[in-house]
Amino acid sequence: MTAENRQIVLRQRPQGIPKAEDFEFVRTSLGPRPAGRVRIRNRALSVDPAMRVWLGPPGGYMPPVAIGEVMRSFAVGEIVESEDAVYAPGATVVGMFGWQDFADADPASILWKVVDRNFPLSWSLGVLGINGIAAYVGTAEICRPKAGETFVVSTAAGAVGSIAGQIAAIAGARVVGVAGGAGKCARCIADYGFVDCIDYKAAADLDADLARACPDGIDAYFDNTAGPIADAVRRHINAGARIALCGTAAVPGWSPWPSGDRVERHLLNKRALMQGFVVTDHAPRFTEILSRLAGWLHEGAIAHHEHRIEGIERAPGAIQLLLEGRNEGKLIVGIA
Amino acid sequence: MTAENRQIVLRQRPQGIPKAEDFEFVRTSLGPRPAGRVRIRNRALSVDPAMRVWLGPPGGYMPPVAIGEVMRSFAVGEIVESEDAVYAPGATVVGMFGWQDFADADPASILWKVVDRNFPLSWSLGVLGINGIAAYVGTAEICRPKAGETFVVSTAAGAVGSIAGQIAAIAGARVVGVAGGAGKCARCIADYGFVDCIDYKAAADLDADLARACPDGIDAYFDNTAGPIADAVRRHINAGARIALCGTAAVPGWSPWPSGDRVERHLLNKRALMQGFVVTDHAPRFTEILSRLAGWLHEGAIAHHEHRIEGIERAPGAIQLLLEGRNEGKLIVGIA
Repeated sequence: MTAENRQIVLRQRPQGIPKAEDFEFVRTSLGPRPAGRVRIRNRALSVDPAMRVWLGPPGGYMPPVAIGEVMRSFAVGEIVESEDAVYAPGATVVGMFGWQDFADADPASILWKVVDRNFPLSWSLGVLGINGIAAYVGTAEICRPKAGETFVVSTAAGAVGSIAGQIAAIAGARVVGVAGGAGKCARCIADYGFVDCIDYKAAADLDADLARACPDGIDAYFDNTAGPIADAVRRHINAGARIALCGTAAVPGWSPWPSGDRVERHLLNKRALMQGFVVTDHAPRFTEILSRLAGWLHEGAIAHHEHRIEGIERAPGAIQLLLEGRNEGKLIVGIA
Repeated sequence: MTAENRQIVLRQRPQGIPKAEDFEFVRTSLGPRPAGRVRIRNRALSVDPAMRVWLGPPGGYMPPVAIGEVMRSFAVGEIVESEDAVYAPGATVVGMFGWQDFADADPASILWKVVDRNFPLSWSLGVLGINGIAAYVGTAEICRPKAGETFVVSTAAGAVGSIAGQIAAIAGARVVGVAGGAGKCARCIADYGFVDCIDYKAAADLDADLARACPDGIDAYFDNTAGPIADAVRRHINAGARIALCGTAAVPGWSPWPSGDRVERHLLNKRALMQGFVVTDHAPRFTEILSRLAGWLHEGAIAHHEHRIEGIERAPGAIQLLLEGRNEGKLIVGIA
């Protein structure tokens, strides 16, 4: 049987925000599975801000996706062919399977097997996936919010930010979001339970807004943006503050390398810490972290939203939608 | 008996590097000792890069020295009058006693009593003082160099940098200094045992020099300068790098706040950490840290230099000498 494998491949290196025309939708025929590989039928594809970094230029934490290559992406799917003892046919798995119907993956590259089937499959790409894990690592292990402390998170209504803030709230912190738009800010307060949320797009004076929302200063900051928001937050940190660096959504590009406020004197005066992290480094702990997140979901302690687009052919425009902030919740491309 | 108390007071807020004319040498008569205070006769005064921060503008980790106030300074001296049980007459103590012959100190403000009298008194202001402690905290607790790693330190020939590098070498790291001038670089290699030292004043291309001196990248950086040196070092860090922020000697001022290379993407791609520290936060551990440093001195594992000026009346020009890099070793003002 020769099945079709629909794929989204990179046509050209994006200039600025990646757009639909930077990609190509191709129909290929699925060849025989290479020996030792596991064949996965993707069911949902993830759309993440990190894709901007993966699309180049080189110098990031991974080599960029090559022209003509299938777009790199987290995905969840079912194993349809395998001789692997751990990853047998019928298992549901998460990994970097790319924007395509079928992936032939090295078993060592599979991130985890979905064992708790109480939740929709696509959640394994969001709150019970890399986004939830990123929120956990940055919040619980770098920001380490304590009861009564003030915790600020940027892209607060996003797939990572919304979970980070809720994890900080579980720890007893007073959570203040920074998001773009009144609707997102309203959702942070109503759905995610944040104490306050600053609409940076409407802010005439971000410093004044931060001072008002954080009258006791800022003890921990989960940074998804870098840029002017991060510069402003650093002006309000308290002694001993922790800043987790998860993303740089507010910086249009890194070539030429951009300038910003010098951070050294802030960090020195405030004996503060800034630490970057990349979630895939924490693979040995994924199972443990996912079970914590599942526990909070079972208890109703964490809310989340999914923004779902149906059809792989609609994936190419999804990065632009995400990076322009037009999504409402975790952005997923479903495959029928 | 009415003794004279010679003092150096701040005459005017310095513009740029503090100069002799920003201070005034005054002869006051020593009044009666306030109740509960301990009277100390200073024997040696410390000159430190941090004085630039203490001299304003406001917003640092301490309020700035006021106009007309005695210049703030670490000093070592003998207690000449006291009713305190712990700090009795005859004891030698270290604290922020200021640039003056006599200080009437709150006993709670005294940093420590010098108990190991095997070393010259003035060492309690350098290698066995705040400088040694700063080198220890930044190196052993933030940079945490491991055997075989590459450790870089700026102002490498200075009172803190030279000790930091030697502590890293004791841990088995490959130590590369950055210093200003061929003489300082030669001293780093010959006296402090560094593998290499880059003369940033002579460097046509600091990146090329760092790449040559650190062929395996940089695992830890003890930053005494911030500025272009720190920006260049960050371009060469390895995954998991640690950067300890001890000083910002290469930044002329913080008002208006200066710009520099954005750090977020470096720290994120390299899962790296930057952390500021202020040595006085670590007071509960001073005794323990000083005994480690004394042990290394007894073993001959740490070398250091002292640059001594005799006479309190020569103190006002000392900060300029230090900040222009014309000192050779820890700068001390001796009082006969």
